[in-house]
Amino acid sequence: MAGSTIGVLFRVTTWGESHGPALGAVVDGCPPGLALDEQDVQEWLDRRRPGRVRSSSPRREDDRVEILSGVFEGKTTGTPIALLIRNRDAASHDYEHLRDVFRPGHGDYAYLQKYGIRDYRGGGRASGRETAARVAAGAVAAKVLAGSGIRVFAFTRELGGITAADTRPGEMDRNDLRCPDPEAAARMADLLEEARKEGDSLGGVVEVVVQGCPPGLGEPVFDKLDADLAGALMSIGTVKGVEIGAGFEAARMKGSESNDALGPDGFQSNRAGGILAGISTGQDIVIRVACKPIPSIGREQQTVDVSGKPVVLAVRGRHDGCVIPRILPVCEAMVSIVLADHLLRQRAVGR
Amino acid sequence: MAGSTIGVLFRVTTWGESHGPALGAVVDGCPPGLALDEQDVQEWLDRRRPGRVRSSSPRREDDRVEILSGVFEGKTTGTPIALLIRNRDAASHDYEHLRDVFRPGHGDYAYLQKYGIRDYRGGGRASGRETAARVAAGAVAAKVLAGSGIRVFAFTRELGGITAADTRPGEMDRNDLRCPDPEAAARMADLLEEARKEGDSLGGVVEVVVQGCPPGLGEPVFDKLDADLAGALMSIGTVKGVEIGAGFEAARMKGSESNDALGPDGFQSNRAGGILAGISTGQDIVIRVACKPIPSIGREQQTVDVSGKPVVLAVRGRHDGCVIPRILPVCEAMVSIVLADHLLRQRAVGR
Amino acid sequence: MAGSTIGVLFRVTTWGESHGPALGAVVDGCPPGLALDEQDVQEWLDRRRPGRVRSSSPRREDDRVEILSGVFEGKTTGTPIALLIRNRDAASHDYEHLRDVFRPGHGDYAYLQKYGIRDYRGGGRASGRETAARVAAGAVAAKVLAGSGIRVFAFTRELGGITAADTRPGEMDRNDLRCPDPEAAARMADLLEEARKEGDSLGGVVEVVVQGCPPGLGEPVFDKLDADLAGALMSIGTVKGVEIGAGFEAARMKGSESNDALGPDGFQSNRAGGILAGISTGQDIVIRVACKPIPSIGREQQTVDVSGKPVVLAVRGRHDGCVIPRILPVCEAMVSIVLADHLLRQRAVGR
Amino acid sequence: MAGSTIGVLFRVTTWGESHGPALGAVVDGCPPGLALDEQDVQEWLDRRRPGRVRSSSPRREDDRVEILSGVFEGKTTGTPIALLIRNRDAASHDYEHLRDVFRPGHGDYAYLQKYGIRDYRGGGRASGRETAARVAAGAVAAKVLAGSGIRVFAFTRELGGITAADTRPGEMDRNDLRCPDPEAAARMADLLEEARKEGDSLGGVVEVVVQGCPPGLGEPVFDKLDADLAGALMSIGTVKGVEIGAGFEAARMKGSESNDALGPDGFQSNRAGGILAGISTGQDIVIRVACKPIPSIGREQQTVDVSGKPVVLAVRGRHDGCVIPRILPVCEAMVSIVLADHLLRQRAVGR
Repeated sequence: MAGSTIGVLFRVTTWGESHGPALGAVVDGCPPGLALDEQDVQEWLDRRRPGRVRSSSPRREDDRVEILSGVFEGKTTGTPIALLIRNRDAASHDYEHLRDVFRPGHGDYAYLQKYGIRDYRGGGRASGRETAARVAAGAVAAKVLAGSGIRVFAFTRELGGITAADTRPGEMDRNDLRCPDPEAAARMADLLEEARKEGDSLGGVVEVVVQGCPPGLGEPVFDKLDADLAGALMSIGTVKGVEIGAGFEAARMKGSESNDALGPDGFQSNRAGGILAGISTGQDIVIRVACKPIPSIGREQQTVDVSGKPVVLAVRGRHDGCVIPRILPVCEAMVSIVLADHLLRQRAVGR
Repeated sequence: MAGSTIGVLFRVTTWGESHGPALGAVVDGCPPGLALDEQDVQEWLDRRRPGRVRSSSPRREDDRVEILSGVFEGKTTGTPIALLIRNRDAASHDYEHLRDVFRPGHGDYAYLQKYGIRDYRGGGRASGRETAARVAAGAVAAKVLAGSGIRVFAFTRELGGITAADTRPGEMDRNDLRCPDPEAAARMADLLEEARKEGDSLGGVVEVVVQGCPPGLGEPVFDKLDADLAGALMSIGTVKGVEIGAGFEAARMKGSESNDALGPDGFQSNRAGGILAGISTGQDIVIRVACKPIPSIGREQQTVDVSGKPVVLAVRGRHDGCVIPRILPVCEAMVSIVLADHLLRQRAVGR
Repeated sequence: MAGSTIGVLFRVTTWGESHGPALGAVVDGCPPGLALDEQDVQEWLDRRRPGRVRSSSPRREDDRVEILSGVFEGKTTGTPIALLIRNRDAASHDYEHLRDVFRPGHGDYAYLQKYGIRDYRGGGRASGRETAARVAAGAVAAKVLAGSGIRVFAFTRELGGITAADTRPGEMDRNDLRCPDPEAAARMADLLEEARKEGDSLGGVVEVVVQGCPPGLGEPVFDKLDADLAGALMSIGTVKGVEIGAGFEAARMKGSESNDALGPDGFQSNRAGGILAGISTGQDIVIRVACKPIPSIGREQQTVDVSGKPVVLAVRGRHDGCVIPRILPVCEAMVSIVLADHLLRQRAVGR
Repeated sequence: MAGSTIGVLFRVTTWGESHGPALGAVVDGCPPGLALDEQDVQEWLDRRRPGRVRSSSPRREDDRVEILSGVFEGKTTGTPIALLIRNRDAASHDYEHLRDVFRPGHGDYAYLQKYGIRDYRGGGRASGRETAARVAAGAVAAKVLAGSGIRVFAFTRELGGITAADTRPGEMDRNDLRCPDPEAAARMADLLEEARKEGDSLGGVVEVVVQGCPPGLGEPVFDKLDADLAGALMSIGTVKGVEIGAGFEAARMKGSESNDALGPDGFQSNRAGGILAGISTGQDIVIRVACKPIPSIGREQQTVDVSGKPVVLAVRGRHDGCVIPRILPVCEAMVSIVLADHLLRQRAVGR
């Protein structure tokens, strides 16, 4: 019970289903005196809006955010910030053909087992749409971080098996996939278009980088910074893996290879990914996140209905061919929320 | 501040440094009426004891646990269970040569940045020794799970780049590395011995499997079962990556490949790893964990002392060549603790 | 930071200021399958509406609640229930004369010290208006309790020094003050009218009774049922004291007088107020709550402005002469929220 | 489940039963760099030791504390501080005659209902002995407060119906009851002696004062400073009521009487008790706590055994005639723990 809140001091609670009247977030614990208006949040929401790339869902949410509390005369007051987003285009009738069918790769079977309730309307609370509330809260977290010179950004490291080998930051802003390698970006886009034509979908790997993080964030031993980051990112429905720094590759190294040597100017490499013993070192924090392909596909799949009878299903409706790039601001949001929380927690140490 | 507690209803708090007088755990929220004695916990501790394989640290802790509360006449009472382990062999003098030196790959630099305090004695709270308390608590969690027919076990999937391709469960118990592929196990052991002779260390991948988990565990949206598992496992100092089911491989699949089809007899594959939308499906839960090589190595490394002066360091003292196999019961403990918590949380749903 | 959430499994987060666009609550952890609609919540809100007695504030909020999530086809789904109440009549201009003045007995001085921010509009987050969100959440909690046969009600035990000596439950519904002693009720109403004419206000004592509470609720040792009830009730702005059962009177008894004897039919008295060692006994839970007089009064008071200059203040605007009876559903809500949480927590014990 | 932890940033977990091998506390979140040794904690424990006044229990615990972690070279490190107290004199055989009998006023009936387990040995977790762990943790909290110039002390305001009218701080240290009114102190001691001779016990009222508390502590709206203080104090087994400032007396005042006027030099009275809208004002915090008489009395009482058969019980064994004065350091501890937590939380606000 009660799993919709994250954070200790900077605490975010989200609510809302994909096809209910609205969804939103309450951000409690935001420090007072930060400049914040609806446009700040809107910019984040616009980045996760469908329809930005060819492969994206044609659903048009318009996602207008309202700030209902916690801001007075353009500044945060220290009290909870309520963020509301109406679901303007929740066409539940699209989901009638799914009323009695378990969709492979989706949460409806597990939810029914959990609650004994079946809300077949497009995924309910398990829908990717829920992440809009996270993104809105992330915009507030980013304000907290900006005040300390911390910057979080995500990009496409891999899509459909194609890897961005070359990383030129300036390139990210030049393609819809936010891929820093323009040549790979073009191939990814083609592959995505192809999959979509086949009624299929693709997975990918997102990389999140945190610049300007001060050393000392993270708490021994369960609330380590990497533990909280991993938990927060894995809480995104589509994520099946998280790694920090060298990650799984570190498992194949020797100690003499994976250790980052120290010199008078600091660390001489960053295989740790900016976190040692769960505490930030001051280097860039580097995280990679494995996203599975979107499970709703037009291709026919074998499944059963609620009575257990075999059914062949081709999911109709509005769906993206890949969670990338819409997932990028969601990953940024989750990382920003965790960092804002740990930034405030570290202040309490009094150093 | 205050990051040494995990869980909502089944709540574990650990304390203790590697070279202090003792370490321990408080397990609050254990249901009443479970048979529990010190031997139950001791068996778990014995499995993480050094010295079981050639490559392990020769330090002999003897790790005797005392149960100080929460058990009456051989049964849990429902009140907090305090578990105490004395540090009998904490030879701090071994660490004198590290007094002023930052060890590459270790937490001492980050801790100093965080707290302004330098406890150079073998890692303090960041030491792998802290995991003894987790393992003791995990033994209690396993009792809770056993009552519901849930079984958790971990084995070596990969070590030093060698992968256990073949998985014969019976084989695990036949080698020290708990590797289900006997041929791979032999090669791993050789590689480990070699690395040790070079004063180096190796990393590896642990796989954890949960059998008999009922469907419905896990809470939308931040306290998803996979989110909590990922956070709990990433909180182990050595862990740099966590993946569920197909994990990072899912990022390279198409939706038609990664979705698990459903038939009248249930799921027809398990690429989800037993968790969909953050909630258990009733299938086996499958998790893989990337462990970096132990950073304390005998080989010379470039580092600096606290004044920033370059130093060449060869770490002396008692160290394992690989966290595997000692990390296996630690992984089992963390998974068991998370599952016990979610099992109790699901009871509250009242279904 | 982040103090707007209460509860472990049944978890309520409120947000909103008295003169912002709206206020609301998120109720996370409500069990699935309970019948719930907006009318259920509206009935609770109507009971705290101003204007029900002569002495109440003439402000007309109309307080219409919207349920934005967590309910599907008239039943709770197990996911967060978002409750929204727009502030329709937030006439901020009434507060212009308070812009620079600290109001005696109010939170504005303390808030400024805390946050360095001055939101002078009618109390902001510290306003009694914030309790509307609690009442809305309380309506949901009451649904949870009703399913277990638990009933919570509050009444006026004392007002302006007049005590309801006689307690005839049926009488409560016959007067606006919900006072069970009709003769006392009449005197209270007169006194209240008199105070209001003088531009003054009165305090009182609310009694809350819980019927049908099963034994076993409450957790040793900090989350005792009486501890959580006391904290929850003291969190209402107007409350300055809480007592359980014989309360302060118990401090004047001997052990032989305060102990409740047990007979074959159970307890033979209820000086414990239904809670022993922090755990419910199955008897009625009896709590009394001391409410201070409303600090906003028309009579002239000595105070200072933000620059520290002495000012004589007579607070204009819409104010009740006493928090009673509007506080009654607020007290019921807080008690219901705490009980719902402990009911779910006790389910996890598995007995 | 899991109610033995209090606090958000300064977090205390206690464990242990009255007649188990030991009890203790884990203090997580204590800032680094504070001087702390066992003697600091011992002094607090000595103040709650039985046998200090004629009326106290002759049981001699000797209560020696061990600090097992979190302190290095005499300074706190920022990691959890484990405090251990062995039960040296736990003569369980004294309790054989209680094996099957419910003691009036005690928690054994409620515990049996909750857990289905009967630990008849002197109250188990519900025993007053549990408070030793709180007192040990309180000693650490007091260190945190001392660094900010905050001082907490408790004294006897009322005992057996006799009130300390006159408050001369210097007098407290001159009598065992820590009563500031020497004349009242003498009468209280006589009354207590008399009750003890009758095999009876007395209740009383403790007053706790906090000096030097900065303004701004406490969080809107549920984690108000007074809410957390009330909850923490009510969590002491013996406490049946808590009031802040004028408390229940405020319920009998008019607004013009209860409001504290403000002048250029600050507040001109302190009926608020140092807290407005749940946030400290910088004035002294004043709390009064109602303690019921100790339920274990030698006089015969009517009760039942576990089978429901009527029994006449005269509790044998070692018992105090009144929780005062032993409860005084317990009250100080709980108040100190809450304040330390809020002090750290306010640091995170960054002002």
